[in-house]
Amino acid sequence: MTRGAVELVTGRTDDGAVAVAARLLHDFNVEYGEPTPPPRELAERLVELIAGDHVTVLRLQPSLWSRTREAYLAELYVVPDRRGRGHGRELLSECLQVARARGATYALVVTSEQDRSAQRLYEAAGFRRTEGEGGPVMLAYERDL
Amino acid sequence: MTRGAVELVTGRTDDGAVAVAARLLHDFNVEYGEPTPPPRELAERLVELIAGDHVTVLRLQPSLWSRTREAYLAELYVVPDRRGRGHGRELLSECLQVARARGATYALVVTSEQDRSAQRLYEAAGFRRTEGEGGPVMLAYERDL
Repeated sequence: MTRGAVELVTGRTDDGAVAVAARLLHDFNVEYGEPTPPPRELAERLVELIAGDHVTVLRLQPSLWSRTREAYLAELYVVPDRRGRGHGRELLSECLQVARARGATYALVVTSEQDRSAQRLYEAAGFRRTEGEGGPVMLAYERDL
Repeated sequence: MTRGAVELVTGRTDDGAVAVAARLLHDFNVEYGEPTPPPRELAERLVELIAGDHVTVLRLQPSLWSRTREAYLAELYVVPDRRGRGHGRELLSECLQVARARGATYALVVTSEQDRSAQRLYEAAGFRRTEGEGGPVMLAYERDL
């Protein structure tokens, strides 16, 4: 499980890794009650995005502030019966290494105020939820267009 | 002011619009006590990003979930003495129209829990800060790499 997702993040993918990743993305949505395309459709989309050199799980884009890049960690999921074994920490650490290797100097993630385990994971990895030291909490807003 | 920023969003830029946008980005950072490159350096970076077809104020990237795109509104600023006249609403509305025209079906913004005027702006434009209707608040986490 972790292997497939890490390969997806790093771009070292084969059909097996893509199928595993598509299944995980699907299961993530089902677990949290979100609408989701079927795994086969997700696998096709992953193949397209990888071929186009878009890193989808960890997204990188050019920074405005300097000639570096910024990372947005869009998806992070560990199947329920394998939680608590450090897989999330391992995936996150790998993502940050890949981001650095590709020139990123900043990373952003969004999580729920109820998901304390995700918050602990991000905080342990050096993320902060405030604007500066001791500043106000940062809130994410979204909408469909 | 609004004209320059809207032109930057839509990619209809000239040197004057870039200089205005660079000055606004600089002033935004100064007002909120953030480190910032000087306006001339920001203008150079804007010219590079526009030439590379990267929309910097409104960032668009391919979605994983369908063959659409996702928008991230990275910067939105109205100079202090022109606030309260609807410029922010106008800019945001223009951004969402541009995002839709470029194939985006989802938009994300991040703001501070203390910035009630930004929150009102986003909420009036149809953004929500919760996961689903009445769900938990979404928190943004960031770190330097």
